Amino acid sequence: MGEAVLPREHLLVIYYHNVPESLPGYLEHIFPDTQITIYRSERDVPVPKELYRQATILATFFHVPDPEDAKNLKLVHTTSAGIDHLQHLPLLRDTQIPISTSSGLHGPPIAEWTIMNWLITSRGFLKTQQAQKDHIWDRNTPGYLNSLYDQVGKRVGILGYGSIGRQIARIAVAMGMTVHAYTASPRLTPESRRDTGYIVPGTGDPDGSLPVSWHHGSDKESLHKFISLGLDHLVVALPLTPQTTRLLGKEEFALLAQFNSSTTASLAPTANSKAKPFLTNISRGRVLDQDALIEALQDGTLGGAALDVTDPEPLPADSKLWDAPNLTISPHTSSLGVEYFRRAMDILALNAQRLRKGEPLINGYNRQRGY
Amino acid sequence: MGEAVLPREHLLVIYYHNVPESLPGYLEHIFPDTQITIYRSERDVPVPKELYRQATILATFFHVPDPEDAKNLKLVHTTSAGIDHLQHLPLLRDTQIPISTSSGLHGPPIAEWTIMNWLITSRGFLKTQQAQKDHIWDRNTPGYLNSLYDQVGKRVGILGYGSIGRQIARIAVAMGMTVHAYTASPRLTPESRRDTGYIVPGTGDPDGSLPVSWHHGSDKESLHKFISLGLDHLVVALPLTPQTTRLLGKEEFALLAQFNSSTTASLAPTANSKAKPFLTNISRGRVLDQDALIEALQDGTLGGAALDVTDPEPLPADSKLWDAPNLTISPHTSSLGVEYFRRAMDILALNAQRLRKGEPLINGYNRQRGY
Repeated sequence: MGEAVLPREHLLVIYYHNVPESLPGYLEHIFPDTQITIYRSERDVPVPKELYRQATILATFFHVPDPEDAKNLKLVHTTSAGIDHLQHLPLLRDTQIPISTSSGLHGPPIAEWTIMNWLITSRGFLKTQQAQKDHIWDRNTPGYLNSLYDQVGKRVGILGYGSIGRQIARIAVAMGMTVHAYTASPRLTPESRRDTGYIVPGTGDPDGSLPVSWHHGSDKESLHKFISLGLDHLVVALPLTPQTTRLLGKEEFALLAQFNSSTTASLAPTANSKAKPFLTNISRGRVLDQDALIEALQDGTLGGAALDVTDPEPLPADSKLWDAPNLTISPHTSSLGVEYFRRAMDILALNAQRLRKGEPLINGYNRQRGY
Repeated sequence: MGEAVLPREHLLVIYYHNVPESLPGYLEHIFPDTQITIYRSERDVPVPKELYRQATILATFFHVPDPEDAKNLKLVHTTSAGIDHLQHLPLLRDTQIPISTSSGLHGPPIAEWTIMNWLITSRGFLKTQQAQKDHIWDRNTPGYLNSLYDQVGKRVGILGYGSIGRQIARIAVAMGMTVHAYTASPRLTPESRRDTGYIVPGTGDPDGSLPVSWHHGSDKESLHKFISLGLDHLVVALPLTPQTTRLLGKEEFALLAQFNSSTTASLAPTANSKAKPFLTNISRGRVLDQDALIEALQDGTLGGAALDVTDPEPLPADSKLWDAPNLTISPHTSSLGVEYFRRAMDILALNAQRLRKGEPLINGYNRQRGY
């Protein structure tokens, strides 16, 4: 009585995998009183126009309608972090329909993948795993006391301090480490250090308060200064651009080793004269010179490395990278998991509410700015 | 002028491993103006009395002098966490020489070992490691998207909230998890929740502020209530006592599975219908019924387990435990590492200062109380 009846929303979810069993129930839970259609797409098969025409809210990865089939659409949400692959389409170029992305989702899974790789190395997992396979219980022979170490007091430098770098920082600080952040543009004010995108609740570094030092630049000199801070870990979380292509090679690995805090500060209580710098790449394979990496691992310049990305992908079976010592490779899976799609839908649900209230969208795409 | 010259201290360090190369320099650094003797002991060979007689400060694991050879001794520090193995000796029974322990050192390495095991499971490491060995780069076939998960929103219950449990809690909270603490005696006041022992700087939960709930008891009923909280992880960090022997068996594993939050709260954004409860034991092997554990892993009651301790140790080559599914075993190495002895010496250096100033010792042994 007295309240206007709002027209019922119609959510169209285009999903290119098998829909997880629990997804329909979950969507009903977070989109109450909404008609919901879930459509499983094939990459190169057009989505039926009729589905688009009925939708008021669209969640999608690859597929968007032409403007003439988007008359009812109030909000489009991509389940990808970026939007580059859609930018050329008429819906983005020629309409003003609000669009948001799933940027920010990758923080927790990729951070956990990163920390896992550090610990597998420092806690000697491959050794104990082999001993388990061989049914050998031996506490002393492999010299655990003098080869294992922990992360307390270690320094991690993070190239690119976005949602992934921030969640790595959060866990690293809890482990007793210090964090040094590197960004392309200067972050001199508290305001500029904030994370303004979506943050998975209970994670990340919303205020940018965790790093003990901030650095910036897009030239080699700034990078070399950062790498010479005495880092035990270097994490590469940069976007791939012409400036970041082959950014890290022989010279950079040598600098990392030269200024590694473990060697220079051997009198500090937490120092560990055995651990050499460890490199983690969760960005794109082409950010590294892979041949230089193999050499640095073979000659002991680096103590270890973890790559979730390679150049090219898929990595060919005859690549020398597979067998480089102290290297773990995963097939670009560090962001994957059962939570991914649900979290993407959480952002959309928040944005549907914001749209109703006339508030600015989270991860909103700005057509002028281009991201 | 006007300042009394203090007699030079003489530190005797009895070490039963090869002394790390950097140890002498480190000791000179943290014990300035002190005469330092490092003696490598064999377990059943007596330490020369002359060494004891000269010492004013003693760091030791197994060996302590008889009272008549301890006339100059002002302080004894054990490099072990406990002191049970020395309690019957005359130096402890019949003298009042201050004694301190290295309790608290185990927090960081064992916490990192614990987190590593969780992440190896949740990030599918064994699968990607095998694919790397086989030179296979395949993002899709093994179904990573629907089998990997992360720890955000997961609930961990920690049985025994000491230095190890607290550092696990610290990292768990950083990963977005919630922590539930269980102790033998009630911890109802803020004062009673504090960690009063040594804490590795930058780690732990000094104020006991991290758990979202505290529970206590030493009977099965209290334990079962705790286990029924809907936990994704149960960590056993209890001392072995008659009460804790075989504390966890078939019934407890079934309760864990029954109330696991992943199944009951499947509509929560962070829920994960695939992950079953994971058990971590860093206490003593006999706290568990190992046959029941093998069965719970085989029939899928538990999703996985990590044991740093077994019953017996060494674990015989023909034990069925070695090949139980989704189980990782390490040979009681979770606390080991290059930092161990240095940190033990850090505590001693702090206590030597405290003794000079007449302040109470950190980790001081109380002869009346017996610990």
